[in-house]
Amino acid sequence: MSFLGGYQGKILRVDLTSKSFREEELSPELARKFVGGAGFGIKRMFDEVDPLADALSPENKLVFAPGPLTGTDAPCASRMSVTAKSPLTGTVAVCMTGGYFPAELKFAGYDILIIEGKAEQPVYLMIDKGRVSIRPAKQLWGTTTTDCEFLLKEQLGDQNFRIACIGPAGERLVRMACIVNERRTAGRKGLGAVMGAKNLKAIAVRGHLKVPVADPAVFAAAKKFFFGKMKESPALYPEFSQHGTPMVVDVACGMGIFPAKNWTATGEFEPVDTLGTAANAARKIGKEHCYTCPVACSQLKLTDPASPYAGAMSVPEYETLYSLGGQAGVANLDSVVAADRLCDELGIDTISAGVAIGFAMELYERGVIGKQETGGLELRFGNHQAMVEMIKNIGFRRGLGELLGEGVKRAAERIGQGAEQYAMHVKGLELPGYDVRGAKAHGLNFATSYNGADHNKGYAYQEIFGIPAPRAVDRFAAEGKGWLTKWNQDIRCVTCDCVTMCAFLMDMAVPDAALENAAGMLRGVTGMDFTPEEVWRVGERIQNVARVFNIRAGFTAADDTLPRRLMTEPIKAGSSKGHMVPPEELQLMLAEYYQERGWTPQGVPTPEKLLSLDLGEALPYV
Amino acid sequence: MSFLGGYQGKILRVDLTSKSFREEELSPELARKFVGGAGFGIKRMFDEVDPLADALSPENKLVFAPGPLTGTDAPCASRMSVTAKSPLTGTVAVCMTGGYFPAELKFAGYDILIIEGKAEQPVYLMIDKGRVSIRPAKQLWGTTTTDCEFLLKEQLGDQNFRIACIGPAGERLVRMACIVNERRTAGRKGLGAVMGAKNLKAIAVRGHLKVPVADPAVFAAAKKFFFGKMKESPALYPEFSQHGTPMVVDVACGMGIFPAKNWTATGEFEPVDTLGTAANAARKIGKEHCYTCPVACSQLKLTDPASPYAGAMSVPEYETLYSLGGQAGVANLDSVVAADRLCDELGIDTISAGVAIGFAMELYERGVIGKQETGGLELRFGNHQAMVEMIKNIGFRRGLGELLGEGVKRAAERIGQGAEQYAMHVKGLELPGYDVRGAKAHGLNFATSYNGADHNKGYAYQEIFGIPAPRAVDRFAAEGKGWLTKWNQDIRCVTCDCVTMCAFLMDMAVPDAALENAAGMLRGVTGMDFTPEEVWRVGERIQNVARVFNIRAGFTAADDTLPRRLMTEPIKAGSSKGHMVPPEELQLMLAEYYQERGWTPQGVPTPEKLLSLDLGEALPYV
Repeated sequence: MSFLGGYQGKILRVDLTSKSFREEELSPELARKFVGGAGFGIKRMFDEVDPLADALSPENKLVFAPGPLTGTDAPCASRMSVTAKSPLTGTVAVCMTGGYFPAELKFAGYDILIIEGKAEQPVYLMIDKGRVSIRPAKQLWGTTTTDCEFLLKEQLGDQNFRIACIGPAGERLVRMACIVNERRTAGRKGLGAVMGAKNLKAIAVRGHLKVPVADPAVFAAAKKFFFGKMKESPALYPEFSQHGTPMVVDVACGMGIFPAKNWTATGEFEPVDTLGTAANAARKIGKEHCYTCPVACSQLKLTDPASPYAGAMSVPEYETLYSLGGQAGVANLDSVVAADRLCDELGIDTISAGVAIGFAMELYERGVIGKQETGGLELRFGNHQAMVEMIKNIGFRRGLGELLGEGVKRAAERIGQGAEQYAMHVKGLELPGYDVRGAKAHGLNFATSYNGADHNKGYAYQEIFGIPAPRAVDRFAAEGKGWLTKWNQDIRCVTCDCVTMCAFLMDMAVPDAALENAAGMLRGVTGMDFTPEEVWRVGERIQNVARVFNIRAGFTAADDTLPRRLMTEPIKAGSSKGHMVPPEELQLMLAEYYQERGWTPQGVPTPEKLLSLDLGEALPYV
Repeated sequence: MSFLGGYQGKILRVDLTSKSFREEELSPELARKFVGGAGFGIKRMFDEVDPLADALSPENKLVFAPGPLTGTDAPCASRMSVTAKSPLTGTVAVCMTGGYFPAELKFAGYDILIIEGKAEQPVYLMIDKGRVSIRPAKQLWGTTTTDCEFLLKEQLGDQNFRIACIGPAGERLVRMACIVNERRTAGRKGLGAVMGAKNLKAIAVRGHLKVPVADPAVFAAAKKFFFGKMKESPALYPEFSQHGTPMVVDVACGMGIFPAKNWTATGEFEPVDTLGTAANAARKIGKEHCYTCPVACSQLKLTDPASPYAGAMSVPEYETLYSLGGQAGVANLDSVVAADRLCDELGIDTISAGVAIGFAMELYERGVIGKQETGGLELRFGNHQAMVEMIKNIGFRRGLGELLGEGVKRAAERIGQGAEQYAMHVKGLELPGYDVRGAKAHGLNFATSYNGADHNKGYAYQEIFGIPAPRAVDRFAAEGKGWLTKWNQDIRCVTCDCVTMCAFLMDMAVPDAALENAAGMLRGVTGMDFTPEEVWRVGERIQNVARVFNIRAGFTAADDTLPRRLMTEPIKAGSSKGHMVPPEELQLMLAEYYQERGWTPQGVPTPEKLLSLDLGEALPYV
């Protein structure tokens, strides 16, 4: 069996310890069972990395994998997974990123890029039309991400290289460091620190190949179907295309689930006027898109020239408006734009940074820490100057920033004095911007995602946008969330993280036809006869492989939980006032979820389930 | 007569008012008489622009012109002039810039690009392999220069465009705004404000043509000669290549001519240890070069991660180490690097900005202005945070920054209270970093340059580096400076600003053979039989055209002067202690200079001189 389309058929494996690399064949069986992207990444981790390894040791690996559609002219499919064991959570971790780098990696001939070992000195990796080399990065080390990109393109003498790199945070092994490619990031779970631990500053890639399409007629029909759905979508044009994710500020505030001031003021602090759609529109100067994307949801914002942050430009997404806005009690969009840009330049995840700073603000206001700990900063909710200073301290590992950069879980452990009750995380990953007390499918997803509290790995758009597909949902009810969460996790995993189509588009264009759409695209591009059911099974398969990896890493059902605050303190105001997720509700949801998954009541996949998913390799571990 | 080599033979004339453009033939006579670069620019200004026009009106023009060597493989010749009437000085003004843009403009087929009129709305100009278009710049307006470049390349869908643009300062018509192309600038005299006044945010250019060479054998011999001289140069390798212009901090301090604290503390404040060669070497992460340059003198500096300016990267040249360092009383290299980068991002000339801030610091320390004027800033010498804030205020025209951005001459006039005695400028252009009280050829050059106090238009390297070519010099003596200054101005004008070879290389590699070198290169590339004498005559011709333009603009010999402080206050300490330029010395030097130039004692070119230079067109004005 060989590939007819969608794949280049090759894996590039780079060993930084020995400064060597080799090409391997991509197995068609792997492609059939795991499709691409996160599927490839998680499977490689499962097969190759000891789940008990130190995430910042040379034993960890970093796997970059686009999907079969990436680099074709399929809309909204230029995405790529980055996978490693997370230094923040200890779980297997997948980040998705877009832009142009993913397609360029395919053009360079590779379906998977595996980085192993650790270079003795800082290096960068160059992949250029069949040539691969590992080169000294002395002239790049220490630079911010856009400077790194600028310098590397100049050094390479070709501006058309696409670059993924880390900033000062990744170099310093900050556990919330991200990987930046242009204005996109593989943002969460500290994968930038994994790259830094390997002394790998950047990857530059330039390709010249095309991505073959197996059956152009079937592929054309699949694209036509998708384009038709996009045009019909009530949310996509013009709203989402024009305003992007900041629209969600209005929605979340309306629902009373916009988390504020370290989740103490949800429903009370609702800065729609200053951080919502209209405020963002007033700062918009343009938009950007990923390769082949007709939507271009990235909304470029420029600060007010009268602001102390004049001149700063960035694309603050909803999550950043939450984390560096509401969570920190900051209602000033210019501050958020500047802080967002700073995070991108230093290579820091905006969600984890904002949650960690909000956590520290609560500790400061409660007197648990003082100016001695903050280096003199008045670290109160709403102090955006202090927030910006603290971001720098996180990125450069200075003072309290060093502690906060370890994530709120480790920071709370080291601070003691009950600080852990204010640490908003699941499995060490800081919470995204949906107060699950008023959106319980989100809560179950946060509790069970293999990544820790990751909204992207099973996003319950049904709760937020009222979309009744595949089922209508009552956001306050615990019942029925097991099935829905499994569905959201499985389907998003395969359609978005493996195929790889943009999550925003899946939710807004084909919530009723995600599997049919993905199956059609896959049939067209690969020539393999994927059915919708088989596509779903791929998603479920990957969820189970990830679960078994985490079990081997020491995780149990006890880790499928939520911060105590959300189980004991009801929301105080707004549209979700009075709601919380009492422990018994969480247990009910978990039990339902495990049952739907075919796992034991202790959350362990049964041998039967694994065999039914053709996962014999996982049997020894359950 | 047609061109055999060196020229593409075409001028691109763009009228922003009518949004139209046309190509014109470059006249071989123009090329013979004015060679290229500044020669073309000044001649176009002389012929086309009313010297009494408002520099910020649509009547002014902006002329970009590379030289005949630009785009060939001649070393160190990828330079370009930018010419306009200056909004800072009111004179005709030439800036030279390097990098890659100049060669790309030649590859695109043009020897001269003339920008006329004013667009109604912000636009950018795209020149792409024979296609020219004027496009809306709404999505770029307001951005900093590197963001503008990043966004424009993305919009154009080709990273290989080369871009010149203005920042927020140019948009706001700040009279010390510059034009930035990559990490190079057409820095002085406010040409960025001229671009801003035309509503032109950026020029993107991509070419596909080669620059023809008329006589490859002669050209090869000329290059061999130059390379030989470069290798023999005692200063070039490894010192200058390794350390670049920051070396001059050590030299200038050693000579006691490093101006400090608005020229009140020359010889007293000599921060060699913190701003000199060794300090710069400690912050160096790499280097950059212009197209075809084997020297790569640009030294990339990265701030200390422990500094409040952690993460900032720039290439602070000597002049910036003076202006944002010594002049402001700032001895901290990290501050200078960060302030330098900020100037580049906002599109502000570092020399004028630093001199203006140092001027304001003196006023503040003397109590002429207070916190009410500074917006609460403690604007004392050495306060680098205040300096950085004031740079932002200049760039965004806020508070005192609006006044300082007008230049020290206008600022002093508006402030009154004797402030003009602290305003260090000639003809409105802020002084570069050589205290002329201990380097009198520099003084005469500052006093007489057609640009105002511009070190680059007749740099007396003989005084600074002790090079005895063409003549040895006593830096403290007034006598003999007339001849030397004329020689320096003429020769640098033609070899550097027209041919266009890098000034650094001229001084260090061929101080004894600058004309022979240029003539050989010109013969090889153009096929025209240039002699060294004729090359010199081109330089002298251009100096005279510029002088007549300025006379028409209202300048007289009374404007050929120096700030009163330098004529009345001796240097208080250091190697030049006790020296100054008393008025009678300046008059002696000026008389000698006018005589050497064949000008009247009132500094007006005689008809005989103009006719001997074949400048009949200038006769009506003298």
